Amino acid sequence: MSDLTDFSKLCVHTITTKPWSVEEAMDHYAAAGIGGITVWRQWLEGRDIEKTGQQSRERNLEIVSLCRGGFFPASDQFGLDAAIEDNRLAIREAAALGAPMIVLVCGAVPGQPLEESRKQIADGIAAVLPLAEEHGIKLAIEPLHPMYADDRSAINTMDSANAVCDLLDHPLVGIAADVYHIWWDPDLEAQIRLTGEKNRLFAFHLCDWMTPTTDLLNDRGLMGEGCIDLKGIRAMVEATGFDGFNEVEVFSERWWARDQNEFLDEIKRAYLEHC
Amino acid sequence: MSDLTDFSKLCVHTITTKPWSVEEAMDHYAAAGIGGITVWRQWLEGRDIEKTGQQSRERNLEIVSLCRGGFFPASDQFGLDAAIEDNRLAIREAAALGAPMIVLVCGAVPGQPLEESRKQIADGIAAVLPLAEEHGIKLAIEPLHPMYADDRSAINTMDSANAVCDLLDHPLVGIAADVYHIWWDPDLEAQIRLTGEKNRLFAFHLCDWMTPTTDLLNDRGLMGEGCIDLKGIRAMVEATGFDGFNEVEVFSERWWARDQNEFLDEIKRAYLEHC
Repeated sequence: MSDLTDFSKLCVHTITTKPWSVEEAMDHYAAAGIGGITVWRQWLEGRDIEKTGQQSRERNLEIVSLCRGGFFPASDQFGLDAAIEDNRLAIREAAALGAPMIVLVCGAVPGQPLEESRKQIADGIAAVLPLAEEHGIKLAIEPLHPMYADDRSAINTMDSANAVCDLLDHPLVGIAADVYHIWWDPDLEAQIRLTGEKNRLFAFHLCDWMTPTTDLLNDRGLMGEGCIDLKGIRAMVEATGFDGFNEVEVFSERWWARDQNEFLDEIKRAYLEHC
Repeated sequence: MSDLTDFSKLCVHTITTKPWSVEEAMDHYAAAGIGGITVWRQWLEGRDIEKTGQQSRERNLEIVSLCRGGFFPASDQFGLDAAIEDNRLAIREAAALGAPMIVLVCGAVPGQPLEESRKQIADGIAAVLPLAEEHGIKLAIEPLHPMYADDRSAINTMDSANAVCDLLDHPLVGIAADVYHIWWDPDLEAQIRLTGEKNRLFAFHLCDWMTPTTDLLNDRGLMGEGCIDLKGIRAMVEATGFDGFNEVEVFSERWWARDQNEFLDEIKRAYLEHC
């Protein structure tokens, strides 16, 4: 693994700089020499999505993924069907935007057995795969930290994500590995290696884990602020042959309250120093 | 698995009713017909510990465990030695109290590799085992939820706890299974079965996972308030032959703010209804 010396493989998620519109984000990221952007769907509301994609390409800003699809589990058929329709919409949005991949936060229903939710997730992905094939859009299952197992994702480890991928066994179905969710896993190195061997390591997300963490959702750290061995995990990821973007996805009320240009400078500094 | 119909196997942790002193807790638990108490060490400060143990036995309240030892990992030798001394003190306190077991929250150091912390945990337990043998005190490793992997425990799954137990291979070293920490684990049933087969399932702790959870430490739910399949997990535990106490360990600012007698009534109701 080599040191990071430029920003060509740095991608920033629009939610990281939440106060900025997608246009502001594209302008600032491009001006900062950043290579990629992952667009959250809320940022496309009211936009001509094809035009937004074109604006990004005009700035030499590669669209890495559309975030996020998923939330397949539901307690009734209406909910299951609605989730499938929403994921089909996300695939069409990704195609319009020119995003090659959708990140899936797979979903969970409080009180519903996690095995049942995992079955619904696999069924849901299978149901939207034909449309994903039609548009050539990859679907990246993001295992979420076990503290989100109640209502955000029944897939909480790389091992669980790999199990769903094995079941579906399709080249468009893979995994988005986010350090925040998986850093604690004793089996992490073996799981990342396996994911690479199966050609399904689709994305790599960066941030840090704060001590203490004061909020379960919006108290992520900028890289270097927390306890995650970022260089170690990047080494595991790159050992698989992964040469995609290093995506910075920080949800932080603290950072969102700061001047976002200063924050972007801090992201660049932290990226070179700590990743 | 049979329904719970009385409180003979119900144990309450003193921290669950935090506003009460250990004397108040013993009086109220005994008056409520509750069979057991787990005493947190802070509740013994300034007490004659042998006398406290005697007061509990006079009330026919079985002392289930002393909570908590552990926190073995440290970044320097001074810290490692201090942790071992503190755990030896805990063993002496347990012996004085008449508690047959100490619950270990094993510890972690932010930024220190979790494998290193796990090695320090195994070494720390090995160092205190001779004193535990001398007094016949069981040491129960409690795997903690992965959201505590930064600074509370490098042991975050039943599998990891079993690995340390395998390494030490001693009849006094086992596991405290707390639903809050392990409910999400896809491998839970197999791990509980394995733990039972190895005769090391020492304790079973109950509470619930709130949706949303507003605080990482002190927003646990009373049984039935959250999403955990408590009856399902109790069935797994009892299928191993476990016939120990069902220990209610709820950290909740919300419940601590309530009248504790009312809370104790709610605990009894929730125990019969949801466990």
